[in-house]
Amino acid sequence: MRIKVGFQGVPGSYSEEALINYFGREVDMIAVREFEDVFSELDKNTIEYGVLPIENSSTGAIANVYDLLNRHDYYIVGEICIKVSHCLMGVKGAKIDDIEEVYSHPQGLEQCREYLSSHRDWKLIPYRNTAVSAEYVNEKGSKSLGAIASKRAAELYNLEILAENINMNDTNYTRFAIIGKEMDKSESPDKISIVISTEHKAGCLYNVLKYFAENNINLLKIESRPVAHTPWEYYFYIDYEGNLNDITVINATKEIERNSCYFKLLGNYKKHVDDIEDEGLLCKA
Amino acid sequence: MRIKVGFQGVPGSYSEEALINYFGREVDMIAVREFEDVFSELDKNTIEYGVLPIENSSTGAIANVYDLLNRHDYYIVGEICIKVSHCLMGVKGAKIDDIEEVYSHPQGLEQCREYLSSHRDWKLIPYRNTAVSAEYVNEKGSKSLGAIASKRAAELYNLEILAENINMNDTNYTRFAIIGKEMDKSESPDKISIVISTEHKAGCLYNVLKYFAENNINLLKIESRPVAHTPWEYYFYIDYEGNLNDITVINATKEIERNSCYFKLLGNYKKHVDDIEDEGLLCKA
Repeated sequence: MRIKVGFQGVPGSYSEEALINYFGREVDMIAVREFEDVFSELDKNTIEYGVLPIENSSTGAIANVYDLLNRHDYYIVGEICIKVSHCLMGVKGAKIDDIEEVYSHPQGLEQCREYLSSHRDWKLIPYRNTAVSAEYVNEKGSKSLGAIASKRAAELYNLEILAENINMNDTNYTRFAIIGKEMDKSESPDKISIVISTEHKAGCLYNVLKYFAENNINLLKIESRPVAHTPWEYYFYIDYEGNLNDITVINATKEIERNSCYFKLLGNYKKHVDDIEDEGLLCKA
Repeated sequence: MRIKVGFQGVPGSYSEEALINYFGREVDMIAVREFEDVFSELDKNTIEYGVLPIENSSTGAIANVYDLLNRHDYYIVGEICIKVSHCLMGVKGAKIDDIEEVYSHPQGLEQCREYLSSHRDWKLIPYRNTAVSAEYVNEKGSKSLGAIASKRAAELYNLEILAENINMNDTNYTRFAIIGKEMDKSESPDKISIVISTEHKAGCLYNVLKYFAENNINLLKIESRPVAHTPWEYYFYIDYEGNLNDITVINATKEIERNSCYFKLLGNYKKHVDDIEDEGLLCKA
């Protein structure tokens, strides 16, 4: 039986590309409409794993994916970064001058902000997904419509590339989390993700962070997200180095949990290090 | 001469409401298309101040506004929080069952996620601004189109309210920054915003944060945003309590600057405290 893996979007999306890079082509790929649907498919046992974009190196966190990871009880079991290179595309025969409306994911538009700022007359329409935008332009068939998506999406939806590599940063990567039902408890993971909140009144983020420094643990990232129903209170999503079989890491993690008023372990998994720099934020004390 | 103040959107937007709450009605209100245009109007001296949404209590930071504040050299001179209560609206005579497509700002859609999840057949179209969505539905005049925006937008664009207060949190606030050309150097500000990055290799966020604890300074918020062109390196946007005429605050700020590889003072301004809780994250050491 082949493994079933879910992703948001349609064929040609960057999520599908991440899925193929991580799992190879010998799996069943299940495309769903919204990020949340990846979690409902896991609930229904129709997939074993999901692939979700979590952060782009130019435009930052995919905030609602962070919220969903906290809300649902699955684990991050892996990650993969892929290089994102956007193209502007239109129907066959369209020219740049024909374009009036451009569809893409909000982060796609944002990543191409500099290019788009020289076409201020274009109406920019944020859309669900880059590849869905390409599919839409193909469906509508009008020369006045453009999409910003991958080269592969242009091929799949029979569109013509009007401008290539239009993102403002050459180093434009998106990091995807692989989620599954079981924690990886083996020795191979080297990265841990947790969510905490500190007490609102006597709360002390600093007092929690000190356990990383004291235990020589490298903090990789902090992301803050609002706590619903409590204005201006935050969840902190913290990534750090370590394996949960290591006694120092276990003890530091316990101290962090003890000093937080909310604590959730999101997973222990292997960091994806390709040719991308990925260093710590904290000195090892 | 009346003061000229810029905001993004059209009449009926929450930004305009924040502007009126902060400055009153006796100012000239200049509506611009994009957040960035607020900065170009300041550059051109066509406005003296700008009003920009910076954070929502349910859905978090308005990330590109953070990036713009860092990129441009203006100061935060004030802030104001307003309660955001969304309505679903359509053209006069439209019924809920007629709706097929719903337009709103991506955060508007996200804030109404629970309500919208019971209408999975609706096509959700993220749009530039909530009030622009209402204006668009009015222009198109079709009963199949809905917008999520404020009650005031419904009145202004002659739309019928189909469902009221559909955001999932009753406590749904948006915080707006007031930006201007000069730092407020008076004694009245009690909140400071800075952006820092710590060195990538030997970098130490913890070593910077300790100056807040050591000096008894209350840290209010940390937000991380990517550094362009350098994957997985971050700017930290830090809000803390204090006035820059106070010697302890001056010294702590200097230490933070000295220990950061990038430092920018975004402003010193009066915290908006209404009936909204707003406490520190850090214990006062």
